[in-house]
Amino acid sequence: MPVTTREVHLTARPRGEPTPQDFALVERALPELGEEQMLVRNLAVSVDPYMRGKMNGKRTYTDPYELDEPMDGGAIGVVQESRSGDFPEGTTVLHAAGWREHAVLDAARVRPVNVPESLSPTAYLGVLGMPGLTAYVGLLDKARMQRGDTVFVSGAAGAVGGIVGQLARIKGAARVVGSAGSAEKVAYLVDELGFDAAFNYKDGPVAEQLAGVAPDGVDVYFDNVGGEHLEAAIGAASDFARFALCGAVSSYNATEPQPGPRNMFLIVTKRLSLQGFIVGDSDRSSDFYREMVPLVAEGRLKFAETTVDGLDNAVEAFISMLRGGNIGKMVVRTGT
Amino acid sequence: MPVTTREVHLTARPRGEPTPQDFALVERALPELGEEQMLVRNLAVSVDPYMRGKMNGKRTYTDPYELDEPMDGGAIGVVQESRSGDFPEGTTVLHAAGWREHAVLDAARVRPVNVPESLSPTAYLGVLGMPGLTAYVGLLDKARMQRGDTVFVSGAAGAVGGIVGQLARIKGAARVVGSAGSAEKVAYLVDELGFDAAFNYKDGPVAEQLAGVAPDGVDVYFDNVGGEHLEAAIGAASDFARFALCGAVSSYNATEPQPGPRNMFLIVTKRLSLQGFIVGDSDRSSDFYREMVPLVAEGRLKFAETTVDGLDNAVEAFISMLRGGNIGKMVVRTGT
Repeated sequence: MPVTTREVHLTARPRGEPTPQDFALVERALPELGEEQMLVRNLAVSVDPYMRGKMNGKRTYTDPYELDEPMDGGAIGVVQESRSGDFPEGTTVLHAAGWREHAVLDAARVRPVNVPESLSPTAYLGVLGMPGLTAYVGLLDKARMQRGDTVFVSGAAGAVGGIVGQLARIKGAARVVGSAGSAEKVAYLVDELGFDAAFNYKDGPVAEQLAGVAPDGVDVYFDNVGGEHLEAAIGAASDFARFALCGAVSSYNATEPQPGPRNMFLIVTKRLSLQGFIVGDSDRSSDFYREMVPLVAEGRLKFAETTVDGLDNAVEAFISMLRGGNIGKMVVRTGT
Repeated sequence: MPVTTREVHLTARPRGEPTPQDFALVERALPELGEEQMLVRNLAVSVDPYMRGKMNGKRTYTDPYELDEPMDGGAIGVVQESRSGDFPEGTTVLHAAGWREHAVLDAARVRPVNVPESLSPTAYLGVLGMPGLTAYVGLLDKARMQRGDTVFVSGAAGAVGGIVGQLARIKGAARVVGSAGSAEKVAYLVDELGFDAAFNYKDGPVAEQLAGVAPDGVDVYFDNVGGEHLEAAIGAASDFARFALCGAVSSYNATEPQPGPRNMFLIVTKRLSLQGFIVGDSDRSSDFYREMVPLVAEGRLKFAETTVDGLDNAVEAFISMLRGGNIGKMVVRTGT
């Protein structure tokens, strides 16, 4: 058993965009295994947009990251040593202990996963993990998507958005449109993921571009971006449209309050429903796995990963992801 | 039977606050009664905030007012002549033909009302009419108020708001707070309607005043006002709070788009639900009457009316109502 491991600590609370100076890679001694504990060697660590919020010092729906402590978050690894009968050595496990190469974990905080042969374990950080469940719950439960709906998703080339669009198609949406931040991503959405249309939000006003791809209105909007996108979606919404508000990545690095939609009264006249949600509240995991594992394993629901190698590069991966440097799930590979 | 009647026409589309020059009082010949028609002598005509939207030329959830035509809207009257067996002379009726002293109406467009002895017929324009149903549907169905909730209503001294607050109390709210635009209205809310606390939004920032009266957070917000009130309510909301968005009177006379809430991301982190609604979509009338008529007739649910006499003064009444010149329902008395 190794005696030390490396972890990424938050050392300063970022103002605006995080910089490498806000973090430190720290070598730390591993504790002895207690009863019902195990040593997990991480294969990959997840970096996700929500983590930006936890870097601020304020509690929201979850506690903020502590300074000079490892940051938690999704990770997948292999049991290397075990004092739990339920987790023999070699078991692939998912856990939330985040940004480190090894972790000593209680059995109660670890979930074994049975990775289908056709898939990489990292799928459980993305399409079959928290981002996938977020897409599933937001689209089906919060936006209550119905067959025949026109569905718009922002941040559509991200870990969540690409799944939203494909799930919408599988569930019978009449039209699926998305926005993303580069021509390459737009092509990926249309050519690879089967979106009916997509646009690069940097090419012009979102409202105009959205009207172009959804001229008959939007019944469901899945919001990962906030800001101008949300205002445009309110403007484009059909009567009784339903919005699942999942994130607002456009504002995560903002240092001042961002302007809100100037067309809020349309929520009344169009009878819109806006529902904010956090995937952690959901109890739909078993439905999700039952539906999604076959779809993904058989290739009927595609996903992409942008992989960065080494915990040394986790901070760069995180900063890049907030800038939109990823297609699909951003994953940091930490071992084999 | 009179041969002419007087009507208020919209003659110009207001920009900003309406002025008397946007309207005309017009004398017009009454048509002969056809089969299943009746002549109604109006007792009172309703002026309501939503009418401002219909004065703009654009269709929203309803058609705009036509220029040089009488404006429709709620009215209560008495059948003066009838060619419908279902509506004998003397029947009190509710209809939507609005701003006029008499109207010739098809029986299909008229509803008879059985006014309890303790009430004035004008109650059917307010607490037992569209505004009352709006309060009922918004609070119970859209905001899904539960026993024990803290409920905040803006525009609380208006036709809808005062009913929202009292219904919330009757349905077991733990705390009921409201905002209004004068010290007199604030006193009315607390002393007459039994609100736990209220504030004058002109006295200081809404967010600060709301935090003062609802220090433990808001579970239900019934929005009649929009703008700064909506932002403050998002800020004060408890996790999983539910907002019924009914109106935005703060912006009805605006000539430029109004700034939206700068804290929209709290909708995600607090998992808020914002539901816009229009009372006309509701099918809850029979539940509403069954519950509300006894409450009102027995005086357990109070209501106020601000009455203006004469159709000549209807325009002034409407303009005054948009400025907050009313306590409770603004009613224009047009006959006896």
